Amino acid sequence: MNQFVNSKENLVTEAIDGLLSASGGKLTRLDGFPHIKVVMRSDWDKSKVALISGGGSGHEPAHAGFVGRGMLTAAVCGEVFASPSVDAVLAGILAVSGEAGCLLIVKNYTGDRLNFGLAAERARAFGVKVEMVVVNDDIALPDLPQPRGVAGTLFVHKIAGHVAESGASLDEVRDTAQGVIDSIASIGMSLDSCTIPGVGKEDRIKPGMGELGLGIHGEAGVEQVAFESARSAMAMVMERLGPHMTGERCAVLLNNLGSTTPLEMSVLAYELVRSGHAEKVKAVIGPALLMTSLDMHGFSVSVMPLRPEWETALAAPVGMPAWPGLHAISPVETVALPDGLTPISPVPSHNASTRRVIEECCDILIAAERKLNELDAKSGDGDTGSTLATASRALKGKLDRMPLADLTQLFPAIGNELSQTMGGSSGVILAIFFGATGDAYAKGMSTLEALKFGLNRICEVGGAQKGDRTMIDALEPALDALENGLGPAAGAARQAADSTASIRKAKAGRASYVPEDHLAGHNDPGAEAVALLFQGLARSTGADA
Amino acid sequence: MNQFVNSKENLVTEAIDGLLSASGGKLTRLDGFPHIKVVMRSDWDKSKVALISGGGSGHEPAHAGFVGRGMLTAAVCGEVFASPSVDAVLAGILAVSGEAGCLLIVKNYTGDRLNFGLAAERARAFGVKVEMVVVNDDIALPDLPQPRGVAGTLFVHKIAGHVAESGASLDEVRDTAQGVIDSIASIGMSLDSCTIPGVGKEDRIKPGMGELGLGIHGEAGVEQVAFESARSAMAMVMERLGPHMTGERCAVLLNNLGSTTPLEMSVLAYELVRSGHAEKVKAVIGPALLMTSLDMHGFSVSVMPLRPEWETALAAPVGMPAWPGLHAISPVETVALPDGLTPISPVPSHNASTRRVIEECCDILIAAERKLNELDAKSGDGDTGSTLATASRALKGKLDRMPLADLTQLFPAIGNELSQTMGGSSGVILAIFFGATGDAYAKGMSTLEALKFGLNRICEVGGAQKGDRTMIDALEPALDALENGLGPAAGAARQAADSTASIRKAKAGRASYVPEDHLAGHNDPGAEAVALLFQGLARSTGADA
Repeated sequence: MNQFVNSKENLVTEAIDGLLSASGGKLTRLDGFPHIKVVMRSDWDKSKVALISGGGSGHEPAHAGFVGRGMLTAAVCGEVFASPSVDAVLAGILAVSGEAGCLLIVKNYTGDRLNFGLAAERARAFGVKVEMVVVNDDIALPDLPQPRGVAGTLFVHKIAGHVAESGASLDEVRDTAQGVIDSIASIGMSLDSCTIPGVGKEDRIKPGMGELGLGIHGEAGVEQVAFESARSAMAMVMERLGPHMTGERCAVLLNNLGSTTPLEMSVLAYELVRSGHAEKVKAVIGPALLMTSLDMHGFSVSVMPLRPEWETALAAPVGMPAWPGLHAISPVETVALPDGLTPISPVPSHNASTRRVIEECCDILIAAERKLNELDAKSGDGDTGSTLATASRALKGKLDRMPLADLTQLFPAIGNELSQTMGGSSGVILAIFFGATGDAYAKGMSTLEALKFGLNRICEVGGAQKGDRTMIDALEPALDALENGLGPAAGAARQAADSTASIRKAKAGRASYVPEDHLAGHNDPGAEAVALLFQGLARSTGADA
Repeated sequence: MNQFVNSKENLVTEAIDGLLSASGGKLTRLDGFPHIKVVMRSDWDKSKVALISGGGSGHEPAHAGFVGRGMLTAAVCGEVFASPSVDAVLAGILAVSGEAGCLLIVKNYTGDRLNFGLAAERARAFGVKVEMVVVNDDIALPDLPQPRGVAGTLFVHKIAGHVAESGASLDEVRDTAQGVIDSIASIGMSLDSCTIPGVGKEDRIKPGMGELGLGIHGEAGVEQVAFESARSAMAMVMERLGPHMTGERCAVLLNNLGSTTPLEMSVLAYELVRSGHAEKVKAVIGPALLMTSLDMHGFSVSVMPLRPEWETALAAPVGMPAWPGLHAISPVETVALPDGLTPISPVPSHNASTRRVIEECCDILIAAERKLNELDAKSGDGDTGSTLATASRALKGKLDRMPLADLTQLFPAIGNELSQTMGGSSGVILAIFFGATGDAYAKGMSTLEALKFGLNRICEVGGAQKGDRTMIDALEPALDALENGLGPAAGAARQAADSTASIRKAKAGRASYVPEDHLAGHNDPGAEAVALLFQGLARSTGADA
């Protein structure tokens, strides 16, 4: 049960100071650690109604992550899953309340109600105007007299926060908050319980099952249900929420309970907008980590009717990074695929000498099949020879359809052909080589310059350089020597290919994963193929080095 | 290995459409599912340099979550941990590139380099201006010739995105991106590997160990190290990054690799700003889910020097909720605790009759200790009598120091006293009762009105109503009858307390967890205490009902 904590005792205070350090100075706290853990807006001037929430920790970013202009004025944090003390809440109230008073937004748990309630009483004795609302959005147990407060609390924070920021009176803010509370509903599903620091995880969920109607403090879900898919999970949740979706326009809050991946959350969003009640869902907050239960692998959905004034409040921008904003649900719009994905077939043309050179190259590689396979077996899977020979046979068979008289078209056409018949990395690399060569030739470079340009491009794209034990080791010196003719090029390629036998550490390609002593004494098969090519061409043109 | 997915085959396409549905219409995609998965800005007009990134999925919100004004123009998504095809990348390039061209930002993996590279080549054959940069920020293996691209890629997206949005040329955007790439470094640590959909999790990390220098595709970390604490983990990571923190001002990106809780991430932020190299860290992005590895329980830190123009680019606001913004690292500032946390000791005063009533109440409860314990044993832990008797003895002993002649002070003083000696929920409830009563009395209500006000407050705060099998069942009728005298009040309390024996389902308090048949036939101990109090007082004042 490793976790990135230092000690259970300092967990919450360290996390708070971590949050403050990374807040850009927007958050401060009361100097009351470890017992009094109150996070506050730094820019608060007490000129408006203050909003205070809080409760046990372990639900981050709630609540401290939602302190800031337009949402909470302060968050009073308890230890993990434990209510803060009366003194801590009282300290928070006294620290942020001005003439306008403050509203306490409390999730419906006995400890929170009592501690916030008594603190409110004490603050009133000081003449502070304090009101309190209790959020009870959980619908897991339909007839529970004391429904819990869960992620729907964020609706209350945001809407009451907007109204308070607008300068409303305490009564108005309280009435707004209560109106939201009376209209919201939440339920969640999880595939695993949470790991409580210093305690561990209760392995209570049976294989293949999930918990529906879970609480956010590790309490067992209301029922274990067979888990089939994201679709069935969302369908179950939305079925429960359906009766609570009053009005034709609803907002939903899609909450990651802790360790659900963003990929899964997006699939859940996909299912949400296709669920039975989706036609009412007009806007969404999330998917995001909003009201978590430590590392619980689960999600929850909260719903509320989108009254115009609430929509305005939810959509109003706020500064804290934890708030993901309200986004309209929109149908997926697609854009047609662009033209050009299917390469235009080149117009075939004839050129006897070009044809002869290509056929010669192909024959050389076909003849070298077994030798190259043997070399490749030392460092790879022994198929370099076969791959090149197969591609060469295919290319020979396609020459009638090739634009042999137009090098601008021919180079990329050869690249396309090789990438299709060779497959894998080698095919892509050769396709890039011939593609870039053709591109350069088309721009007016000489054949040799264009070939060197192609070589540079595959170095750049593939990340290999001379000395890395690849075909580049032979190709680069061969092209460098080619201005002096095929004979010198063949000589340079042969010398370079042979020198690869002493490169004991490959730095690119598959050979980089092979132990050094497997490589020693054997030429790299790619470099050897290049040397054989240039030697063969030199021989057939009478330029043998 | 339950996960919120429907099928491995549709995972990525469904997640993309989920993202699009919740984007408020800001994102669109090419109509090429399932093979071509390209997410694009809806508002793109090709008037500027386009930025395209992408690669295998499983790193969400990267890359599609960072598509939008000021960051990426498009993201080309592969299957989980698999490069997208050449055709997919080419489709992306052709769809978003205008006269200004496009820059491909590719993480350094062979598959991505080759597929993006060949697509670039093909796009160039259509006359599109395409440049490509390769991000290789991983420093896990110092002498690796091909360092991987990890979370530092986000620096490149954001800075190049800002420059492109400002209208810079393709060469300028490419040079900016390359400059960033040359300056960044990243390394991470994880406590568990990731769960690959359809494959599962490799259980390779030994108990008590963590992996340092992990990859983001489930590949093993460079070394397994003993895991001690968040502090030691961050120290190891920052020690490796130290040599790469050039310049006196650095930005860091604190990345959640998947399932690390926000609480842990805040502790890691806490340690980051206290680490050996913290004095150079001036600003932070995160902690947040940025470049994940599915559900990996780990974090990574990326560093870059904060050149002024880069700082401006990183700080520029963008619209996508996945980008947490750049925040200055600031020392934790605290605010002094407010006055008033220690209740002012009331000025003692004398009043014989008030003293007599309180002593009488205390004696009644002391005498009832055993009876109330027995009743409580039916529904709770059998200590109601002892709790009340202990508090009563303590209160009697404090009467000399009580403001007996001043009810405004006396009510809250009794509440404070009871909350201290009783502890737990009962103490808090009585403290709220007497506090609210005192508050109301101070505002001019009569004693009876004030007591009723106190009762309302505990109903409100505690969430219990008459009929819920609590002391309220007796207190409410007693106060209602009190205007007719103590005799009628005592009669009403007795009748009501006795009727609690037939309430078979408690709705509040601890008894709500007790099976019905345990409760039947026994009075609620709280209600019984109230009845005994009123009966005793009535008797002693000769008003016996």
